Amino acid sequence: MKLLRYGPLGSEKPGVLDKDGQIRDLSGVIADVGGDAISDMAWAKGLDIDSLPIVGGSPRLGACVAGTGKFICIGLNYADHAAETGATVPPEPVIFMKATSAIVGPNDDVIIPRGSEATDWEVELGVVIGKKAKYVSEADALEHVAGYCVINDVSERDFQTKRSGQWTKGKSCDTFGPTGPWLVTRDEVADPQKLKMWLTVNGVTKQDGSTKTMVYGVANVVSYLSQFMTLHPGDIISTGTPPGVGMGFKPPQYLKAGDVVELGIEGLGTQKQTFIADV
Amino acid sequence: MKLLRYGPLGSEKPGVLDKDGQIRDLSGVIADVGGDAISDMAWAKGLDIDSLPIVGGSPRLGACVAGTGKFICIGLNYADHAAETGATVPPEPVIFMKATSAIVGPNDDVIIPRGSEATDWEVELGVVIGKKAKYVSEADALEHVAGYCVINDVSERDFQTKRSGQWTKGKSCDTFGPTGPWLVTRDEVADPQKLKMWLTVNGVTKQDGSTKTMVYGVANVVSYLSQFMTLHPGDIISTGTPPGVGMGFKPPQYLKAGDVVELGIEGLGTQKQTFIADV
Repeated sequence: MKLLRYGPLGSEKPGVLDKDGQIRDLSGVIADVGGDAISDMAWAKGLDIDSLPIVGGSPRLGACVAGTGKFICIGLNYADHAAETGATVPPEPVIFMKATSAIVGPNDDVIIPRGSEATDWEVELGVVIGKKAKYVSEADALEHVAGYCVINDVSERDFQTKRSGQWTKGKSCDTFGPTGPWLVTRDEVADPQKLKMWLTVNGVTKQDGSTKTMVYGVANVVSYLSQFMTLHPGDIISTGTPPGVGMGFKPPQYLKAGDVVELGIEGLGTQKQTFIADV
Repeated sequence: MKLLRYGPLGSEKPGVLDKDGQIRDLSGVIADVGGDAISDMAWAKGLDIDSLPIVGGSPRLGACVAGTGKFICIGLNYADHAAETGATVPPEPVIFMKATSAIVGPNDDVIIPRGSEATDWEVELGVVIGKKAKYVSEADALEHVAGYCVINDVSERDFQTKRSGQWTKGKSCDTFGPTGPWLVTRDEVADPQKLKMWLTVNGVTKQDGSTKTMVYGVANVVSYLSQFMTLHPGDIISTGTPPGVGMGFKPPQYLKAGDVVELGIEGLGTQKQTFIADV
């Protein structure tokens, strides 16, 4: 299933995409696409999607999962991306956190923060936890995954690297976490390590990669994180980006107000954001 | 007021301490001590605490604020603590995040994670946001603070510094964020930069400091963070620790199962945790 949330920011309703690509309303079935609904999918068994009310028009899409407690990111998780940033692949996954307050819908405007001169893009495979995970093995890890989504891990490189230690500062700005359009349930993703992914800026391709070059794969990362902390339903793990980010160009290419970024991952849908100034 | 949450983990009720130190139940007044209640304190005006039901016995205390969206920490924010860890005070505050899933009550057991050999303590002044803050000035910053609390920023030093980049890994383990006992409203704290703070391990004093040696004070930190991201009611900022942490001793002193840590801050109450193995 392709689960989604539609409607104005802060009052989104749950929905699901039907086989014709139309949004169907799930309000009569679940309260929201959040930790509760995705941790026990009993409601989905035998559900006749075509009998659900069609949602007309082209509503705004919200982030595809609500109530995320942790927004965990894996750094430098593609060998060729690490190389372009001048770093090397670390011996263990690098973990950092994005503020959950950065999460927005897939097509919402992204605000370039005041004083920013180095706002950058990163197409990433998002992993949404569906079942509590603590000390899980790599073999069992995927059973704790509800599904996958597209994430743009928007980053301010100067805030991240030149404003005193730790990356959080450049990763957590408001609107820096477009998430969706859909939470694609795990059963629809045959192999999360074989998904093409791409990103364009004003129509020009910048990233054109695949999750097959991910260093620490999804199962590895879920297992690894669960050695440090319990992962809860609704938590999101953003698994790193392939080459082609703005800071990797010589000279670097950063986003300015008016730029349009589009990105997508095979089977998981696409996002489109206009970057705007913070006035 | 000294607001608190009492009862079993996950089903805490709101309470308030009366002038005799007894817990009074606030369930009839507010749903919980969370973002909603502390962002609009109209319910507190004219409240007759002595007319509220007395809570008998000695119930467990939960974290003093519910539904925290961001648990932001300031690193190396006491000059003498920075020195003991071999670091220098940075030119701007160092920000990192603790997972909100690490938050527990002030007297709950703290679990030493499997494989840990360097679990450490840090008494810290916690600042709880009461009003949305974005691009606020230092002069206006304290108006966005609901109140203050004690936090033990429990840290696994090897996870933090020897397991590949970024501190999050050593800061986010389950139970690593004892918070409370009380959320002491701002009106009861005349000057947050003049509070004595202390911590003992098995009765032996390890930390004996004051918020007066904080490098970046509360107003500065709230204003600074709000330049990067919106702070929301219920968000917690843990403002750093004075000297005397385990890693500062030669040789380092780390916690083992059975150790008892007690800590407190002037006017904000005390915590007491038994550290236990993760079996």
